Amino acid sequence: MSPIVMKFGGTSVADLDRINHVADMVAAQAKESPGGVAVIVSAMAGETNRLVGLANGAAGSDLVGEAFDDEYDVIVSSGEQVTSGLLALALRRRGMKARSWLGWQMPMLTNQVHGKARIEDIEGNGFPEAIATGEIAVVAGFQGRTEDGRITTLGRGGSDTSAVAVAAALKAERCDIYTDVDGVYTTDPRIVSKARRIDRISYEEMLEMASLGAKVLQTRSVELAMNHGVPIRVLSSMAEPGQDNSGTLVCDEDEIMEKQVVSGIAYSRDEAKVSLLGVSNHPGIAADIFARLARSNINVDMIVQADSRGPELANMVFTCTERDSDLALSVLSEAKDQIGYDRIIVDKNVAKVSVVGVGMRSHTGVAEAMFDALSSKGINIQVISTSEIKISVLIDASYTELAVRALHSAYGLDAVG
Amino acid sequence: MSPIVMKFGGTSVADLDRINHVADMVAAQAKESPGGVAVIVSAMAGETNRLVGLANGAAGSDLVGEAFDDEYDVIVSSGEQVTSGLLALALRRRGMKARSWLGWQMPMLTNQVHGKARIEDIEGNGFPEAIATGEIAVVAGFQGRTEDGRITTLGRGGSDTSAVAVAAALKAERCDIYTDVDGVYTTDPRIVSKARRIDRISYEEMLEMASLGAKVLQTRSVELAMNHGVPIRVLSSMAEPGQDNSGTLVCDEDEIMEKQVVSGIAYSRDEAKVSLLGVSNHPGIAADIFARLARSNINVDMIVQADSRGPELANMVFTCTERDSDLALSVLSEAKDQIGYDRIIVDKNVAKVSVVGVGMRSHTGVAEAMFDALSSKGINIQVISTSEIKISVLIDASYTELAVRALHSAYGLDAVG
Repeated sequence: MSPIVMKFGGTSVADLDRINHVADMVAAQAKESPGGVAVIVSAMAGETNRLVGLANGAAGSDLVGEAFDDEYDVIVSSGEQVTSGLLALALRRRGMKARSWLGWQMPMLTNQVHGKARIEDIEGNGFPEAIATGEIAVVAGFQGRTEDGRITTLGRGGSDTSAVAVAAALKAERCDIYTDVDGVYTTDPRIVSKARRIDRISYEEMLEMASLGAKVLQTRSVELAMNHGVPIRVLSSMAEPGQDNSGTLVCDEDEIMEKQVVSGIAYSRDEAKVSLLGVSNHPGIAADIFARLARSNINVDMIVQADSRGPELANMVFTCTERDSDLALSVLSEAKDQIGYDRIIVDKNVAKVSVVGVGMRSHTGVAEAMFDALSSKGINIQVISTSEIKISVLIDASYTELAVRALHSAYGLDAVG
Repeated sequence: MSPIVMKFGGTSVADLDRINHVADMVAAQAKESPGGVAVIVSAMAGETNRLVGLANGAAGSDLVGEAFDDEYDVIVSSGEQVTSGLLALALRRRGMKARSWLGWQMPMLTNQVHGKARIEDIEGNGFPEAIATGEIAVVAGFQGRTEDGRITTLGRGGSDTSAVAVAAALKAERCDIYTDVDGVYTTDPRIVSKARRIDRISYEEMLEMASLGAKVLQTRSVELAMNHGVPIRVLSSMAEPGQDNSGTLVCDEDEIMEKQVVSGIAYSRDEAKVSLLGVSNHPGIAADIFARLARSNINVDMIVQADSRGPELANMVFTCTERDSDLALSVLSEAKDQIGYDRIIVDKNVAKVSVVGVGMRSHTGVAEAMFDALSSKGINIQVISTSEIKISVLIDASYTELAVRALHSAYGLDAVG
């Protein structure tokens, strides 16, 4: 009998009322889980920001950086510590056996990269045994401990990763991520009213959806779940008892019987297109450009290179987040002479729209259908990039909704009725 | 070269401004302390109350008790954790080497009595070594860890005790307790304007002063300092650099050259007198009465027994805090038949006034001088109790100030000029 892991984010534990609601859900789950229950909690909504504000004030905002991150982690991790104690109390009030587990107690061992540490191991000193006795483990998410005993945090959204890591360590039956939506949708329901909740989606598809801006699950948590074969279920933390709350199961492709060619349409408006025009084209030029960007920690997404006025000159186009594009502009402008190019243009008025589906591996014609649908609405494609299970296009940002709706219909994703 | 230990309470670290002021004081101390510095901090003022409020809300105030105290400790200890991180950051901002140490990291081992744990040992795994390298240790006060790895707290005011325990473990030169007064006074300056700051006071005297309501230092911290021979200095956390801030040194009697017969006058208004009249006097009756009170955790202070209308009947009078007196009344009323007495009277309109001084051991006439001074002001003494270095009397509460002033003059404690 494997345990069940449940995870609740900051808005789900925002105040004592919400914590009591969560305690009801956990108590109900515990009664039907003979293998035991572990619950991972975030800080109460707003608390992390308050603590970061205090830390910045103490450090002097001009001095923020690596030399301070270890103490940031000490300060910020206290938010999850408080929630775990509160939920344990609320569960005991309901007659359940429960106790809090902090990152250092399990211990959740991480590397030394304070502020965005990676989990290396859960030693689970007494932790699985406690759960096996029927005691609900309330785990403070987002936090860990280095080998030499200092507190670390996993970075924003790290509680999802904590939950999956705990589920993997416990060989849990499932990791249920309770959130403010009731599952993963074929696309953003605010744009397409006929968007449908997906019953099952593969890890690979979820990764593409998540990294493309469908912000339901943290990318790292999905990767970790995929590597350890932990099924994740995304479901609503607001549901009342008795209400349908089956959510979306993120699992292995093999466990999905009826595969769609395309599972969903994702989009992201936080995109900028940087064009270097008239680059003198010689071997190593691309490596030089992208090494400079990498050194400044700029995450480059799509890359296109094409000849410009003959083979000696090329145009180099890439995309990154809007925020990174300002830095990219200054880095590349400073190196204009070393790189050798005519002109640099940054366009922030772009959006990326993607179709995602494991079915693409075995079906042809997916790209054609996409280009057809967009052209029939008069939408111009600026950049195309593809992966095994995804096709993305960069378009004028003002066409985002139109494109998403057209593609959602074109691939037969609209809900019936 | 021994380290110096400094301790700052909640009002001294109430906000970022105060924390910056503390950082200045610590940095200055570190520059003149080649043996290194450890700083113990409390939670920011108000924070502990906020956390206790949350914990009570989650537990349901009707269910507070031992079965919940372990999680209370998890929640409440986060307050000191945050302050220790903030002060470490503020010190680094000043170019100092500093890091936070939490109770579990040192580790500060305690017994399992959550909510009011007692320190058993400081293992100091790497802790003294870090201080010896010149890194300022910023220790979260008030908190410890059990042998099996759970967080404990030491009870209200426990940060004083943390500080002395750290000082003892480090064999510190001195433990400086920074507070909102600039030292220990011969009596309460709000009552006697001519009260003087005491330069040096013995541990024993300080214990009598503290337990009698001169609330500068926590009693347990003074006991611990006495047992380990740690000199404590009480001084102001508000002093500006350059200002006289020599405070009061609490030390061994031998280190005080000029001993006063009486060092100070203490008083307490939180007293109640409980009188059992017409108790049938037989062997074991006192043991029976006080065993009942002890079982209800009532702390009895003064006790007087005298015959009442002949030797078969006695009057039994004792004092306790006002809050405990209600419980005492109900405990003793319920057992009226078993104990066998006529009447019980509770009088909350009483105060205890005490003269304290190690000089009493070698000087006679101290008690007579006290009774003279009080009778000359027409103050009636209800109960008398004495210890080796203290004489206490219970009087009508409305005479408290008059009595304190009269005694302060009578023993020559008034400041000159």
